Amino acid sequence: MQLGLIGLGKMGGNMRERVRRAGHTVVGYDTDPELSDSASLADMVGQLTESPRVVWVMVPAKVVRPVVEELAGLLDEGDVVIEGGNSKWINDHHHAELLAERGIGYLDCGVSGGVWGLENGYALMCGGPEEDVAKARPVFDALKPPGDFGFVHAGKVGAGHFAKMVHNGIEYAIMQAYAEGWELLAASGEVTDVPAVFESWREGTVIRSWLLDLACRALADDPNLEGIRGYAEDSGEGRWTVEAAIDLAVPAPAIAASLFARFSSRQDDSPAMKMVAAMRNQFGGHATLAEDAGDLRSDTSESGPGAEGVSKV
Amino acid sequence: MQLGLIGLGKMGGNMRERVRRAGHTVVGYDTDPELSDSASLADMVGQLTESPRVVWVMVPAKVVRPVVEELAGLLDEGDVVIEGGNSKWINDHHHAELLAERGIGYLDCGVSGGVWGLENGYALMCGGPEEDVAKARPVFDALKPPGDFGFVHAGKVGAGHFAKMVHNGIEYAIMQAYAEGWELLAASGEVTDVPAVFESWREGTVIRSWLLDLACRALADDPNLEGIRGYAEDSGEGRWTVEAAIDLAVPAPAIAASLFARFSSRQDDSPAMKMVAAMRNQFGGHATLAEDAGDLRSDTSESGPGAEGVSKV
Amino acid sequence: MQLGLIGLGKMGGNMRERVRRAGHTVVGYDTDPELSDSASLADMVGQLTESPRVVWVMVPAKVVRPVVEELAGLLDEGDVVIEGGNSKWINDHHHAELLAERGIGYLDCGVSGGVWGLENGYALMCGGPEEDVAKARPVFDALKPPGDFGFVHAGKVGAGHFAKMVHNGIEYAIMQAYAEGWELLAASGEVTDVPAVFESWREGTVIRSWLLDLACRALADDPNLEGIRGYAEDSGEGRWTVEAAIDLAVPAPAIAASLFARFSSRQDDSPAMKMVAAMRNQFGGHATLAEDAGDLRSDTSESGPGAEGVSKV
Amino acid sequence: MQLGLIGLGKMGGNMRERVRRAGHTVVGYDTDPELSDSASLADMVGQLTESPRVVWVMVPAKVVRPVVEELAGLLDEGDVVIEGGNSKWINDHHHAELLAERGIGYLDCGVSGGVWGLENGYALMCGGPEEDVAKARPVFDALKPPGDFGFVHAGKVGAGHFAKMVHNGIEYAIMQAYAEGWELLAASGEVTDVPAVFESWREGTVIRSWLLDLACRALADDPNLEGIRGYAEDSGEGRWTVEAAIDLAVPAPAIAASLFARFSSRQDDSPAMKMVAAMRNQFGGHATLAEDAGDLRSDTSESGPGAEGVSKV
Repeated sequence: MQLGLIGLGKMGGNMRERVRRAGHTVVGYDTDPELSDSASLADMVGQLTESPRVVWVMVPAKVVRPVVEELAGLLDEGDVVIEGGNSKWINDHHHAELLAERGIGYLDCGVSGGVWGLENGYALMCGGPEEDVAKARPVFDALKPPGDFGFVHAGKVGAGHFAKMVHNGIEYAIMQAYAEGWELLAASGEVTDVPAVFESWREGTVIRSWLLDLACRALADDPNLEGIRGYAEDSGEGRWTVEAAIDLAVPAPAIAASLFARFSSRQDDSPAMKMVAAMRNQFGGHATLAEDAGDLRSDTSESGPGAEGVSKV
Repeated sequence: MQLGLIGLGKMGGNMRERVRRAGHTVVGYDTDPELSDSASLADMVGQLTESPRVVWVMVPAKVVRPVVEELAGLLDEGDVVIEGGNSKWINDHHHAELLAERGIGYLDCGVSGGVWGLENGYALMCGGPEEDVAKARPVFDALKPPGDFGFVHAGKVGAGHFAKMVHNGIEYAIMQAYAEGWELLAASGEVTDVPAVFESWREGTVIRSWLLDLACRALADDPNLEGIRGYAEDSGEGRWTVEAAIDLAVPAPAIAASLFARFSSRQDDSPAMKMVAAMRNQFGGHATLAEDAGDLRSDTSESGPGAEGVSKV
Repeated sequence: MQLGLIGLGKMGGNMRERVRRAGHTVVGYDTDPELSDSASLADMVGQLTESPRVVWVMVPAKVVRPVVEELAGLLDEGDVVIEGGNSKWINDHHHAELLAERGIGYLDCGVSGGVWGLENGYALMCGGPEEDVAKARPVFDALKPPGDFGFVHAGKVGAGHFAKMVHNGIEYAIMQAYAEGWELLAASGEVTDVPAVFESWREGTVIRSWLLDLACRALADDPNLEGIRGYAEDSGEGRWTVEAAIDLAVPAPAIAASLFARFSSRQDDSPAMKMVAAMRNQFGGHATLAEDAGDLRSDTSESGPGAEGVSKV
Repeated sequence: MQLGLIGLGKMGGNMRERVRRAGHTVVGYDTDPELSDSASLADMVGQLTESPRVVWVMVPAKVVRPVVEELAGLLDEGDVVIEGGNSKWINDHHHAELLAERGIGYLDCGVSGGVWGLENGYALMCGGPEEDVAKARPVFDALKPPGDFGFVHAGKVGAGHFAKMVHNGIEYAIMQAYAEGWELLAASGEVTDVPAVFESWREGTVIRSWLLDLACRALADDPNLEGIRGYAEDSGEGRWTVEAAIDLAVPAPAIAASLFARFSSRQDDSPAMKMVAAMRNQFGGHATLAEDAGDLRSDTSESGPGAEGVSKV
């Protein structure tokens, strides 16, 4: 079949390649002429000669809206737009309504797989009417991994991005889990070869996973992660997951902790900890605590032995 | 080679079988005569005719000490005891010293794999001297999975159980991650078939893992987990992981959150929440808040609209 | 001066009384004729003969909007509306714009103090133009506590409710702090008279506070809180605080933990913990763990000694 | 009465002064001859001419043990030693046993109040036999605040330090609560004068407290806390509180979060966040994400719009 694909960056470019390898025709559009197969969105639509047309949007979340609006004027009744980026699920309803006025179908489709998707296939979480899913089925089959899994029609419009959002929230906490374990192993002197322990976990353990495999790849390159800064961006989905949990009164302590850890990692100095330090100074003159250590003078009342103090014993 | 194996329950029994399938001789001992290959520890040791003897201890943590003490009197210089249970790593040093007085070697070996280990192999995290590891190598090779991973000589005595402890701490947080995601998907009306979403994640996603496979097995049996109570035990390792993190000043918010969630799951009523409710009653007469809802009377000052109130709008 | 006061429930009724005690005239309106001083909003406005009029709205958040809309049609240029309930700060901007079209001023004013405010005074956090604050100053002075504190003009429209929202977020975490401490003291056998310990903390300690005083009142009535269920509602402000923190990338782990603890307290059974239990069953046959305890059979590999097991040693 | 007081640093020196102001005789000992009233512990004991003698130990936790041991050889049957520092409660049992062999009584007494105790009085949490408490009662009365509160006989030996430990755990979470609220107010543009908001909270609010008063003192000196580094030490008690909670299966998420926030504040770079960043690089080439922003190229699949991206829209 024919597919129009908008956005040919890291993800979109690889997806075009994977769909083509499956024998389909892909007409891509990108603002970069060197990547693009078409001169404009209108040109791209014009090159799609089969009906109904299927157009996949794979652009940054902030430009989804104008692209969808432009497509609304270019496509015909019965065509289908698939939003494959990381839109917030509640925006999908707006997109769907906008296109429905013109009789154009809309599917939201969360895509997972990163740079590995070209070879392994992309996991797809799709929301929208069954009839629109059917129109795009050959493309889904081309993109997904070859096995029994990796595609789900999760529900109505929005369900795909909601499922993808939760996927990413889970991802945050799993990454945090390995990260805390790694830091603990590295901080302790018990284990002499931490990368070897991680590597060993890849078979037979309860915690074997693809993220563990990636962690081992990173450790193989840089066993102490010396070349990497402890600075982690977060994406909209992690935030939206916690917001959705709050909205639904669902406790999400591990996912929230993972999100906050990323926030903290990006602060040069923690304002909150300034306030904690300021209060400590007020009640205990803690700033000068170090001067008293090691003799028979009295300890300050609010603090027991700090880690440093204890280790001197 | 010959192996003495003490403890033939769920784990030990399967391990005996796996080592035998690899062509080795296993003389098992268990207090249950129906399971046991020998009448006593002394009998078991007597049946091990090769030197050096290797004896694997696979008993509940609380009886490891007396078993090790009895073995100290039965084994000879150069023999090796492997503690395969879930001892706390700091106890390994005591066990090793006790045996070292008699010239007997000691290895601690964390074992992961659960009831799946018989077929898939067991992941092994081992601590102790290289020469003692060498004596037991054929047994390790028999127990581990067939691939490149699943065994690590993690360091000196204690390193194996420390690595296994951290493994379990990570496991807690990963399980919590999927659990929070599942609850959120189930609480929301967005996704119509939650088990199908989980199933789809098994290929192509960032969060594919063995624990996800197990979650899907559980959902296949009971799609809403109606037959399962939200009550989760915790084991020593999860607690020790957080304690070790505290001792080393390593932040472990996700693992700690996972542990606390298990604690909470076992409380019929939360004492802490009694206190929160008691304080709310004191300042706001919150107990009677519901009576005021829906008219133009004033709200109490400390509370905005609760979820219920908002949803009525 | 004269004040129109809409909403004469628990908070509004007491506030009317406190303003009257200060010598001002209050014309109240409530849908309950037994509480109301006027037959309708129009009647209330009609009874305010001084110009500019000042009207205080003290109704549930969900009815603020229609009340403000009705006031827009009843008041005149230069009059001032004060929203004293728990509106979300972003809604204040809508209210202010709506009234500004008619030349009517708008102030948002978070109010703290609960049922104690009548005697002690109410803490007021106010947002809006200085000129409108000046018009209502005598009312603020009547409501606030007698000392140097208890009133702040926090910024533009919205700043008052934002400050009140953060106040409530802080309140959640402080309540959680005492609650966790209380549960820990009660769970331990070390301290024989927990209420006495709490009582003693009311002077000289670092943690003395008004909430501690309230906790002691509750414990004086019911030393073990046996008559109180561990069930804590949450209000909009706690949720909005965490949402605002997420939006601003501010780590808020203690406030979020406090919010999640309230969510958990309202669940009869935790869906997330069902999933954790389900996964444990899949890998370890944990459901039958108890049967194995106490003999030399092997422990399951994923669990060390549980709390119960350890305590039996 | 007479009191022997060992350790005349910041706390001990002020306590000597407060006891003397109450009309009692204090013979102090400190290794610093300029502070000390006696040449040695033996000299100090020799100057205590009344029987039974009462000796208060106010030294760093790590030197409590040798001091207690030396006192055991200097004191007589019926005398009482009070450990007023921040010993771990389980160590109190050892101290008590050691002294009991000589017929010497032992009390553990947690002391709160910091540098403010001299004027305001010290809160005292005491554990041990009633008869020994009675012997030291005049000293307790001199040290405690003048009101009804501030002293508790919390239980047997260890109960005083246990209560003080929990006090400090609560203190951590309360400080964290204000700190998170402060950071949120400061990060938002809604409130124009954050110190004024804090100041206003000191009367009439639910969250008024002594720690709030201290926070306001700190903000009065330095409204943006620019001169303070976001670096917070922790003391033994915070750690012990979480460890005790874990031991008793008490969920303590807010206190633990507060402790972990302090740990994080002391890390120049977070090892855990290095691992998170490393995994992100592996699956998504996130390092180069910024290059793609702003055009129609495809987004990476695992990330939605980051905060920065969104703000550029």
